[in-house]
Amino acid sequence: MSALSEGLTQILIPVAALIGIGFALFQWFLVSRVKVASHDSSNGYKEKLIETDEEEEEEGIDHLEVSMKCAEIQHAISVGATSFLFTEYKYLGIFMGVFGIIIFLFLGSVKGFSTKSEPCTYNLGNTCKPALANALFSTIAFLLGALTSVLSGFLGMKIATYANARTTLEARKGVGKAFITAFRSGAVMGFLLAANGLLVLYISINLFKLYYGDDWEGLYESITGYGLGGSSMALFGRVGGGIYTKAADVGADLVGKVERNIPEDDPRNPAVIADNVGDNVGDIAGMGSDLFGSYAESSCAALFVASISSFGIGHDFTAMSYPLIISSMGIVVCLITTLFATDLFEIKKVSEIEPSLKRQLLISTVLMTAGIAVVSFFALPSEFTLYNFGTEKEVKNWHLFFCVAIGLWAGLVIGYTTEYYTSNAYSPVQDVADACRTGAATNVIFGLALGYKSVIIPIFAIAVAIYVSFSLAAMYGIAVAALGMLSTIATGLAIDAYGPISDNAGGIAEMAGMSHKIRERTDALDAAGNTTAAIGKGFAIGSAALVSLALFGAYVSRAGIKAVDVLTPKVFIGLIVGAMLPYWFSAMTMKSVGSAALKMVEEVRRQFNTIPGLMEGRAKPDYANCVKISTDASLREMIPPGALVMLTPLIAGTFFGVETLAGVLAGSLVSGVQVAISASNTGGAWDNAKKYIEAGVSEHAKALGPKGSDCHKAAVIGDTIGDPLKDTSGPSLNILIKLMAVESLVFAPFFAAHGGLIFKWL
Amino acid sequence: MSALSEGLTQILIPVAALIGIGFALFQWFLVSRVKVASHDSSNGYKEKLIETDEEEEEEGIDHLEVSMKCAEIQHAISVGATSFLFTEYKYLGIFMGVFGIIIFLFLGSVKGFSTKSEPCTYNLGNTCKPALANALFSTIAFLLGALTSVLSGFLGMKIATYANARTTLEARKGVGKAFITAFRSGAVMGFLLAANGLLVLYISINLFKLYYGDDWEGLYESITGYGLGGSSMALFGRVGGGIYTKAADVGADLVGKVERNIPEDDPRNPAVIADNVGDNVGDIAGMGSDLFGSYAESSCAALFVASISSFGIGHDFTAMSYPLIISSMGIVVCLITTLFATDLFEIKKVSEIEPSLKRQLLISTVLMTAGIAVVSFFALPSEFTLYNFGTEKEVKNWHLFFCVAIGLWAGLVIGYTTEYYTSNAYSPVQDVADACRTGAATNVIFGLALGYKSVIIPIFAIAVAIYVSFSLAAMYGIAVAALGMLSTIATGLAIDAYGPISDNAGGIAEMAGMSHKIRERTDALDAAGNTTAAIGKGFAIGSAALVSLALFGAYVSRAGIKAVDVLTPKVFIGLIVGAMLPYWFSAMTMKSVGSAALKMVEEVRRQFNTIPGLMEGRAKPDYANCVKISTDASLREMIPPGALVMLTPLIAGTFFGVETLAGVLAGSLVSGVQVAISASNTGGAWDNAKKYIEAGVSEHAKALGPKGSDCHKAAVIGDTIGDPLKDTSGPSLNILIKLMAVESLVFAPFFAAHGGLIFKWL
Repeated sequence: MSALSEGLTQILIPVAALIGIGFALFQWFLVSRVKVASHDSSNGYKEKLIETDEEEEEEGIDHLEVSMKCAEIQHAISVGATSFLFTEYKYLGIFMGVFGIIIFLFLGSVKGFSTKSEPCTYNLGNTCKPALANALFSTIAFLLGALTSVLSGFLGMKIATYANARTTLEARKGVGKAFITAFRSGAVMGFLLAANGLLVLYISINLFKLYYGDDWEGLYESITGYGLGGSSMALFGRVGGGIYTKAADVGADLVGKVERNIPEDDPRNPAVIADNVGDNVGDIAGMGSDLFGSYAESSCAALFVASISSFGIGHDFTAMSYPLIISSMGIVVCLITTLFATDLFEIKKVSEIEPSLKRQLLISTVLMTAGIAVVSFFALPSEFTLYNFGTEKEVKNWHLFFCVAIGLWAGLVIGYTTEYYTSNAYSPVQDVADACRTGAATNVIFGLALGYKSVIIPIFAIAVAIYVSFSLAAMYGIAVAALGMLSTIATGLAIDAYGPISDNAGGIAEMAGMSHKIRERTDALDAAGNTTAAIGKGFAIGSAALVSLALFGAYVSRAGIKAVDVLTPKVFIGLIVGAMLPYWFSAMTMKSVGSAALKMVEEVRRQFNTIPGLMEGRAKPDYANCVKISTDASLREMIPPGALVMLTPLIAGTFFGVETLAGVLAGSLVSGVQVAISASNTGGAWDNAKKYIEAGVSEHAKALGPKGSDCHKAAVIGDTIGDPLKDTSGPSLNILIKLMAVESLVFAPFFAAHGGLIFKWL
Repeated sequence: MSALSEGLTQILIPVAALIGIGFALFQWFLVSRVKVASHDSSNGYKEKLIETDEEEEEEGIDHLEVSMKCAEIQHAISVGATSFLFTEYKYLGIFMGVFGIIIFLFLGSVKGFSTKSEPCTYNLGNTCKPALANALFSTIAFLLGALTSVLSGFLGMKIATYANARTTLEARKGVGKAFITAFRSGAVMGFLLAANGLLVLYISINLFKLYYGDDWEGLYESITGYGLGGSSMALFGRVGGGIYTKAADVGADLVGKVERNIPEDDPRNPAVIADNVGDNVGDIAGMGSDLFGSYAESSCAALFVASISSFGIGHDFTAMSYPLIISSMGIVVCLITTLFATDLFEIKKVSEIEPSLKRQLLISTVLMTAGIAVVSFFALPSEFTLYNFGTEKEVKNWHLFFCVAIGLWAGLVIGYTTEYYTSNAYSPVQDVADACRTGAATNVIFGLALGYKSVIIPIFAIAVAIYVSFSLAAMYGIAVAALGMLSTIATGLAIDAYGPISDNAGGIAEMAGMSHKIRERTDALDAAGNTTAAIGKGFAIGSAALVSLALFGAYVSRAGIKAVDVLTPKVFIGLIVGAMLPYWFSAMTMKSVGSAALKMVEEVRRQFNTIPGLMEGRAKPDYANCVKISTDASLREMIPPGALVMLTPLIAGTFFGVETLAGVLAGSLVSGVQVAISASNTGGAWDNAKKYIEAGVSEHAKALGPKGSDCHKAAVIGDTIGDPLKDTSGPSLNILIKLMAVESLVFAPFFAAHGGLIFKWL
């Protein structure tokens, strides 16, 4: 048995979660000390805006009007984002209800809705709860996962819209202050999300246990619904939010920057508020739901495999909870890591921002490696057996240490590679910028080539992680490797959320008419933010690959498949069709962004042409109309890709059976990872190539610039093309591969019992 | 036994091949009746140019000077293409020598270069020739395949450069005449290639038999080298030719069309000759080698599987030769089909071109279906057994009919789908053109989305073909399905080669300063040619998918693998790394085109800036310098992607073993097909969206145009980006997947004996 007692485990996990929540609230408190004029539109009253007792005043710091404007813009963004999310949640509520019923009916029908207890499948000789109970509890877990996911995204958005104007205002005091505000706010989101996910899962397990008692097979089978709930919400969040933000962004850029030659985020641009709202609903809320989904799924996959291994059969609660204890340790490690960024080092120059963020990744990885060793030593028996597709595998505790650690370090490799390919401090992005000399076409050709090339190292890193963890501990090894990559999720999310917050901060500075100097500072924060956003996406994709493989393994176990042999026609056609799905999905999302952007362009052009004095800044544009276009487009257009993802496993499993579905999962996994990585890195590189030309910090960059030059125009075209790639289709793809896998896992008993209708008929 | 006697089989196959060659020569004779001024640069003498005794003279037909100019340009193109190919062949000769030695050493080492006969593996109880003999004959077959491939590409190029000016001159008489000339020339290439491939293979088998006698296992194992030779030459042809043509094309367009605002193919553009040479070495010679490779490989895969099935073990020569008889029937069917285009129907209007080409596909498919039925009935026993990964599968002759036929019809579905997505007669391309209204960025976004979407139907078609043929006749079924798709290769190549010939014809018309009306006619031919080129690529990719799967099956059989289970770490890491390879490969080729194009742009700009009177047409540009840039770039840049493809199977097999290699092959197959289809359709669509705006035949198109409008400029950017996608990386990818599979097959005995060093060491 494990060295750590069950009682202590039951205390440590919730305590870690509460520490995470407490730390998040403390960071929020620190951010809230930056005062912004409270905006109360009902009575028009505005309190004093900024208190600056401890700092010497810098340029523009006493301009009350500017602060008022910031507050007003922040309010508009916050209202827009909240209203969009609530509208989206209405649709998602309907979806949750309908899909909950489908889960209950499909799983209930496995044993014909019988309420009789059944002999267990793995824990031989014992009696397990009826399939109907599993159907009911899976549905409940699904709803819990969905609600937690929605909550994660919503909280993230709230924090981000709270922090954006504060970051702008702090930028007046210097880049270091602004950086800390943005980073702290990101940390609030990261910790809240990691801790919430852990806490809800922990409580659910304990509540489910009241009914299930010693039937851990059924208990952890039902818990997988939690992952499904989390991921399905994430899908709609990512796709809907992605279409919203990019329709607005592309539309705003095409008319504003290209046709009218006004700067980004200029308040005269009617789509500017929609654009800034989009950052919050897409990059923040979408990303939050996405990573929460990964976290929930990898935990569920590990728990499921453990429950049918010696941990579960021997009822060793501490060892069973290994995934949760790893996450608990992760919260503590990330807490320490955060202090390095906010308290130990201070950013004084723009050039220190990126290294500082990179250092966060490295510190958290090093500390976590020690943390994993501790957890693996205390929470696991020294030897145990794990389920391995019908056979047992002898495993030692230090094997699992290696599995988790290799996942963690593979994440770091992916993060650093992504940084290399998307940061304008290195030659790949500079080459892309250089290609702008001969116009947009060569820029696009080089950018696409960069994206393709950037998959090489991440794929090798993932392959090594898979080989090592698979060899050491079968599917359980993969699941905990995924958890290892996600164990520093709080830090990962902090540096990821930092990006859109800085982007918004820059937008607010521009709209509030703040000075060039401040805009330069927020631009520097934002350029680093593009890179960190790409790193965040790299993590999301890498972990998604491992998670889906773990879920795939769990699905295969649960569906009772002995081998997924490529050399059988059923599997092969699944494989090739599965590899096609990311393309189908991307076609839908790209086209959605394109069409919505066309509508946005027409509206923006219309306003410029029909509102007198708009270009001169004498009249205000109709922001609300653009917000409405983005909202309508995203809600309408998220349904077809969502349906593709949600229906494919159901159709493949029901009509073609469990083997073909296994092929589909494997195919979409190996193909989707490549499309996702290349799409987000290409987009990130174009964006930063443009920023490289705009910033003009080197001789080379100066030769390409300045803003408005032919090179810069070519770079803007690349940036615009990259928008849907990096913020809509790319990041949605990791949800595609995870979600299909977890859905297959949840529905596996049904497919195994009733699936494969067409082949049965043939 | 088969109804057809061995003796008759031995007569029918070579006769069909000779008929094909004869028909090709007859078509060539017909084309040669269009007289072009013979260009003899040594004494400057020029004979009379055109004889037009049977036709009423049309506009410009008596302009002797124009014809002289055509002849001169044709000569320059022909000399450029020939000189490039000869330079390329020098490199390829070295490669052939080195790789031939590698094959001999690797395969010879399997049994330690022993000259002792061995007991057969499948034909139990009999004695087979020593492994050393197989090594030697595999090497010979490799060299034969390589030489045939080179010959196919070279002949194609010769014909195309012979036909281009003739097509231009015929365009003066009307679009129908020009169409027939271009189409006949394409047919010359198609028939020569199909017939040559068949004849060399047939002769090789009979010569090898002199040594092997009754050891058919060894005989057909060695013959697989033929496929490897064909495909490895095709790789370099495609990649080298692809880089050549697109460096020139992109470079010419970027300066000429975008910066200097002069028309495409304007003689003042220094890169114009290189561009036109490129069409011939890339699209013609490259495509010829590629399809010959597919044809050789699918024949080899089918023959190999048959040799270890009841056909081979029972020494039924006619049944063994079923793949060759199918191809023989294909030649006859295509011959009849060609008459429909050249003699039965006459093209009178531009709008009839595309339907006529589509009709060719349909006619050949319908006729060939009957042909397959006849062949399957006479050449096969009514019942037999086929090898199925260690077990035997009972098969009936009508099962094989269905396998071949479904491959054939799947090809038609792919062809028609490709046409739908790349022809500007339908809404997808028109939508892309429409997206140009808001600039290049939306054009690119819509184009990428179109390419992604266009994979859906082809993948389903391939999946159905695989499922049916695999279920009916295991791996042999897949191999003959691929042959079915390729059985109408002569027609496919004819309509495919038609494209670049028309493109060249247009170029010559422009350079010779012919009238607007004639240029319009050649443009119409060319627009249809873009679509047919895309159809040709669709066929090449579809057949490559089936061929590689068949080769993959043959490899697995020969390597003695029982199952390729995705749920083993060795296979899975192969799968995910394999799925990455198409991206790595595309990154290399895209970047090569980009860099070479940058150099070309600089040279073209330099010439415009430094040669006085060039823009006014008073001075001649230095064409040769541009030709040199393309030549150097393509020869240098084809090596890294070539090495990636050639070394991957050797490294994976030697160090990671046969299972990992199997994973790599499956992964690159399912991922590469998607990348290839989407890349070539996206490129084709952009090209035709541009042509749609230029032609301005509908109200919608007129609103977007004319040439030089903002919409048109955006369309030109898309077209330029599409160039490397559709003509370099896309079509090279099908060689990547085929070549890795056939190479694995040839080296399988070595990998099985000595491979997997790393895992053995671990």
